[in-house]
Amino acid sequence: MHIVEDYKDRSPLVKVECSTKAKSSSSRWPKTIASGVLEKFPEKALLVMDPYVIQMNSNSNLPSVLDVHVNLGGRSSVPGKMKGRKARWSVRPSDMSNKTFNPIRAIVDSMKVKPNPNKTMIALSIGDPTVFGNLPTDPEVTQAMKDALDSGKYNGYAPSIGYLSSREDIASYYHRPEAPLEAKDVILTSGCSQAIELCLAVLANPGQNILVPRPGFSLYRTLAESMGIEVKLYNLLPEKSWEIDLKQLESLIDEKTACLIVNNPSNPCGSVYSKSHLQKILAVAARQCVPILADEIYGDMVFSGSKFEPLATLSSNVPILSCGGLAKRWLVPGWRLGWILIHDRRDIFGNEIRDGLVKLSQRILGPCTIVQGALKSILHRTPQDFYHNTLSFLKSNVDLCYDALAAIPGLRPVRPSGAMYLMVGIEMEHFPEFENDVEFTERLVAEQSVHCLPATCFEYPNFFRVVITVPTVMMLEACSRIQEFCELHYHCAEGSQEECDK
Amino acid sequence: MHIVEDYKDRSPLVKVECSTKAKSSSSRWPKTIASGVLEKFPEKALLVMDPYVIQMNSNSNLPSVLDVHVNLGGRSSVPGKMKGRKARWSVRPSDMSNKTFNPIRAIVDSMKVKPNPNKTMIALSIGDPTVFGNLPTDPEVTQAMKDALDSGKYNGYAPSIGYLSSREDIASYYHRPEAPLEAKDVILTSGCSQAIELCLAVLANPGQNILVPRPGFSLYRTLAESMGIEVKLYNLLPEKSWEIDLKQLESLIDEKTACLIVNNPSNPCGSVYSKSHLQKILAVAARQCVPILADEIYGDMVFSGSKFEPLATLSSNVPILSCGGLAKRWLVPGWRLGWILIHDRRDIFGNEIRDGLVKLSQRILGPCTIVQGALKSILHRTPQDFYHNTLSFLKSNVDLCYDALAAIPGLRPVRPSGAMYLMVGIEMEHFPEFENDVEFTERLVAEQSVHCLPATCFEYPNFFRVVITVPTVMMLEACSRIQEFCELHYHCAEGSQEECDK
Repeated sequence: MHIVEDYKDRSPLVKVECSTKAKSSSSRWPKTIASGVLEKFPEKALLVMDPYVIQMNSNSNLPSVLDVHVNLGGRSSVPGKMKGRKARWSVRPSDMSNKTFNPIRAIVDSMKVKPNPNKTMIALSIGDPTVFGNLPTDPEVTQAMKDALDSGKYNGYAPSIGYLSSREDIASYYHRPEAPLEAKDVILTSGCSQAIELCLAVLANPGQNILVPRPGFSLYRTLAESMGIEVKLYNLLPEKSWEIDLKQLESLIDEKTACLIVNNPSNPCGSVYSKSHLQKILAVAARQCVPILADEIYGDMVFSGSKFEPLATLSSNVPILSCGGLAKRWLVPGWRLGWILIHDRRDIFGNEIRDGLVKLSQRILGPCTIVQGALKSILHRTPQDFYHNTLSFLKSNVDLCYDALAAIPGLRPVRPSGAMYLMVGIEMEHFPEFENDVEFTERLVAEQSVHCLPATCFEYPNFFRVVITVPTVMMLEACSRIQEFCELHYHCAEGSQEECDK
Repeated sequence: MHIVEDYKDRSPLVKVECSTKAKSSSSRWPKTIASGVLEKFPEKALLVMDPYVIQMNSNSNLPSVLDVHVNLGGRSSVPGKMKGRKARWSVRPSDMSNKTFNPIRAIVDSMKVKPNPNKTMIALSIGDPTVFGNLPTDPEVTQAMKDALDSGKYNGYAPSIGYLSSREDIASYYHRPEAPLEAKDVILTSGCSQAIELCLAVLANPGQNILVPRPGFSLYRTLAESMGIEVKLYNLLPEKSWEIDLKQLESLIDEKTACLIVNNPSNPCGSVYSKSHLQKILAVAARQCVPILADEIYGDMVFSGSKFEPLATLSSNVPILSCGGLAKRWLVPGWRLGWILIHDRRDIFGNEIRDGLVKLSQRILGPCTIVQGALKSILHRTPQDFYHNTLSFLKSNVDLCYDALAAIPGLRPVRPSGAMYLMVGIEMEHFPEFENDVEFTERLVAEQSVHCLPATCFEYPNFFRVVITVPTVMMLEACSRIQEFCELHYHCAEGSQEECDK
């Protein structure tokens, strides 16, 4: 039940009803999801003697002002339309808040999730490695925080982009000969989410567009559409380990394209791009003169046999904003320390983009100073074993999960090389009972108490995402339940008898 | 020199030149300040064989593409205007970042501050009570953080509006019979700055306006203008202990007014409003049907003899979003834990505004979880002595400072009742050498190495703000230097001979 409560808690005030249409991977989210419930606001008039003294206790015996006009549009909040405003209240949420929409929340909240009471819930849906307690952060990381607290030096305001010393620590840690970094190239943020928000906010105006991977992390669209920025989806190819369809990508670029988001290693795919593929991506950006937002929050989280190449080390002429943070590699996502690394060796961003990022950072004044104060020790005292053990655990879990799911008729897992996720294709023609991945995963919860996120959450229907950070026994139990579920509901597609004879 | 380095560090990339005009308290910030330096971007073309393989080493022997078109407007970044984009780079900062402007940064950075080398620098300008180490937070507060770390329970993602338990803690702590609160009425944010940002973002659309105090905290304008929201300034009256000019306030309200910001206790004034004045403010809001954003970050920080009245306890029908945080009362501004308290007993905000705040909070996922985990102990274990000692220190510093400055010809301090600030009027007619408060404070640094913020930073010329959290000896030394400075530059105004004979 953890997952269900978890999602309830995550937005106790939001309960968005979601039509079946809403579940389909339309390239825009249906208004039916984005708009809330409209209500009338009965309001008491106010009796005042001295115009500046309000009668606190005189409301009860006053008539209600009924027939309150409510703008049913919800979106156009032009108060000019409101006549006789003084007689009544009409407080409307802004267009921005109406446009701010989290598809995962809406889709998950709308799922009629009643787990099987006879089976304990197994949540393979939460992208939080700390949930099950099997992946604690390193004691050195905790100690670094205590030292920062004891020093008493980190309680005051830091510069809005972070302490100079902390930015120097990040710069030297991520400095590469091919992609040099100094403190001035680093901006600390309240988590990688704010890093991405600042990058989009400085690069794009309303009416411009950004290029986003499909399947991809839903926050890109949530942030972009809240700012009136159009999202164009470029395709990842499962048959090519989720490499980018470069021709289709390039075909999407127009004069209004403000940036290209490259997420490597990938959530939800777990893919890790090769040097040569990254160079081809950079070639498109260079030819089209489109700057890149590199979401590298899973940087260095790659399994043995693969190598993470920071995008900026492969190009000296494409301007790149690389976003990262402590969340995943150090297993402390709640601490909200992220960063932007500015790579601009051709001075294409120039001072204006740098200044723009600084100005935007001054709106909420950066991340928690205690975490900033702990940064140096976190980066340099965390033992290599910690990183190694995390990755080998993830790798063995991935192998177990992949092998188990690959053996199940009707499922097509794609083997990941990094991050914390595994995407599984559903051969829907073999599961005619279910309309789509949302129904498939709904029923999986109802019958087997196993919760996976339908990839519709990532705009990629008929797949589901498995989080591979859960304890191994849980992972194996989940896989056997998924097998039971699939065998129960698997039907032969017409004209594929031989497949069923296997 | 602390202050100078401090400001340098706060925005190492920003060095905004500020004209004399810019220093005058115009109701909009001159474009000359907001716009940055424009540059051309020479860029290498790219030779590619396979269109998807970039030649990493072939740039050197390629011709530059010169004559790069740069949109000198800066503001209208409509890429449609850019012809042949594919041939060149032109990355422009967004309108939002251009409109995001911190007046304190610009004014202070533009001040030619060369302290007197023979006198140590005394900074009375920084609104950070931790800078001089004389006001540490309570050991219980630090211990609460360590306990949260040791528990290992607060490393993962929290709900974007904060843990349910932490919101319950805040709700019960700030609950009043006349202004009840439950967890659902609390949203935790990354500092009070983000609380204010979310409130403005949910209540106002571009083109609407908000009512902001003058003098007032500059962040209101910075946030509003970055979102395209107009700022209308209502006047505070120094002769009435900075009470609001209610008639002028009400005259500003029109159909596009989205909210009224009330900052009590006040930065920069240190004023604390009486119950009756707050009721008169509420009467205006009720009559005009304008919701209130109550910035109560200095709530409870009032000196003996005054009482802080939470605005929401005085009205049952005006919808109020009250913003607060740990920053000032617990002396940990860097920790970035703030909150919004939703008071809406007439259901005027309704679910839509609540849902809007939740959706907006999902953009960057709330404050650091360790601080959230420590919240219960911080609220309940901090000894009363801690609060008492902080306030009695501030009160004695205020009295010393007020008495000293009130005795100086040409200065007119206004006695504060709370917060951490004291505003001092400059009788400019007696200081003809100086054009305004900015020049006055500039010269004060140059001659006496005492740095105070010119109130032009708060859109209130010919005053300066003194921060009263500095060690007492420093405060006294600063006052005697200010006296020496004023006596040196004081001139009798014509026709006020008797004044000079005193």
